[in-house]
Amino acid sequence: MAEILKGAPVAAALTDELAARCAALKARGIAPALAIIRVGERADDVAYERGAIKRCEKVGIAVRQYLLPADTKQDELLRAIDGINADEGIHGCLMFRPLPRHLDEREICEALDVSKDVDCMTERSLAGVFTGAGRGFAPCTAQSVMELLRHYGINPARKRAVVVGRSLVIGRPVAMLLLASNATVTVCHSRTNRLEEFTRGADIVVAALGRARALDEDYFEPGQIVIDVGINDAGDGTLVGDVDFDSVEPLVDAITPVPAGVGSVTTSVLCAHVIEAAERR
Amino acid sequence: MAEILKGAPVAAALTDELAARCAALKARGIAPALAIIRVGERADDVAYERGAIKRCEKVGIAVRQYLLPADTKQDELLRAIDGINADEGIHGCLMFRPLPRHLDEREICEALDVSKDVDCMTERSLAGVFTGAGRGFAPCTAQSVMELLRHYGINPARKRAVVVGRSLVIGRPVAMLLLASNATVTVCHSRTNRLEEFTRGADIVVAALGRARALDEDYFEPGQIVIDVGINDAGDGTLVGDVDFDSVEPLVDAITPVPAGVGSVTTSVLCAHVIEAAERR
Repeated sequence: MAEILKGAPVAAALTDELAARCAALKARGIAPALAIIRVGERADDVAYERGAIKRCEKVGIAVRQYLLPADTKQDELLRAIDGINADEGIHGCLMFRPLPRHLDEREICEALDVSKDVDCMTERSLAGVFTGAGRGFAPCTAQSVMELLRHYGINPARKRAVVVGRSLVIGRPVAMLLLASNATVTVCHSRTNRLEEFTRGADIVVAALGRARALDEDYFEPGQIVIDVGINDAGDGTLVGDVDFDSVEPLVDAITPVPAGVGSVTTSVLCAHVIEAAERR
Repeated sequence: MAEILKGAPVAAALTDELAARCAALKARGIAPALAIIRVGERADDVAYERGAIKRCEKVGIAVRQYLLPADTKQDELLRAIDGINADEGIHGCLMFRPLPRHLDEREICEALDVSKDVDCMTERSLAGVFTGAGRGFAPCTAQSVMELLRHYGINPARKRAVVVGRSLVIGRPVAMLLLASNATVTVCHSRTNRLEEFTRGADIVVAALGRARALDEDYFEPGQIVIDVGINDAGDGTLVGDVDFDSVEPLVDAITPVPAGVGSVTTSVLCAHVIEAAERR
């Protein structure tokens, strides 16, 4: 029986800490605020937005919503971002992606002031994740993996970490964050031969390949810590991870559930980035 | 007896190809040019500069030297870079680093137009190495590893690559380039436990830890390809790599010598970046 690494206690602990820091900022006359840009009405975005707003309320962060129609023009969106950049009362900006196809997403992302880039949409933030220089912020989901490990007392230093998946949203950033924490890090992907040899040899496995229950008990060994970043539709409307929880959980030392694992931490990390951005000013 | 992967044939083949591309550019009225900024008279810089100028001559690239005294002021250097940015006749810029301590190196590096950043001194170029998006250019030494593998017909795809060292100049960029070539990549470093287990399990080992002869025969197995990026003073004035060549060479399938290995390819890669920058215009 593995320890179940639930996200809610991580989020709760973070929220308490952040609420105190937010109160301290307000005592100094700084009211942390997050701008949320949503173009269109995609259901996933609306649901995440609801969760983010609720979390911000708990922490004490003000939210300013920029809700734009799906046919918003490039220059309108750029103007909105210019306004956010210029507004000293806004400390961070979350924009839902992908944007509708008629928009040049790269140009729009790059328009944001890196100091307000709390979910790593600019190249400069990504460069910071790569260099460890710490301007900008890591993608919230990648950072959530690190917060979860920290909360449960798992220090990646000198451990063997295997990241399955090399996306720019999760795989590569989380690999860099683990490396910065002194883990020895292997990045596996769809072209990896004998993936099971890599995952079985790891102390920590981060699954971020985006395929429902792709990693079953053949990929794991006793003693391992399994962090499942996947959120996939099982086909019957239920959400499942990249790891086959039912067969893997009895085998390993610790595992995150899906849902209620890593995904439950992301809005707290978003708030942490907003608070930190406000503190840096 | 291993195959000795010498750098000179790689450089020669690259130079021939680049000379043809340079001639084609000149036929279109474009004369590729490289600006070299050197602050002070450090012997290593002067020696590398001499090699770079010679290589540029062979390819047909014009060189403009900016030789500045060691006590150059921040704004003088920034003005030089502004001039290079504004000059449409200059396609690339190499600046020797580290700069003298009284200068803010980060600010100066970031001042360079990313399209002329042929040795990856800007954050945006580094971000490109991380994302694979390909604006800017990878650091010349990291790219030289890839050119050397390509020249000798070694395709990293689906292979196990282990990079020893996580510097921003070599370790991390070369890991990203190998990953982009579909290798499964592990980054090891000074905090890696049982390093020999990682290196022995690899198909390709890239040694970039910067310690003379640190990896001896205990770290290798028959059948491996060893790329040694280290250049260290052996203590007696001779240059040696990070790999103990004499004990490892009889064991493995292929190995780069030091000197005359990876280091012999870098000026050709520098030229390749200048030609590519000129072609992109």
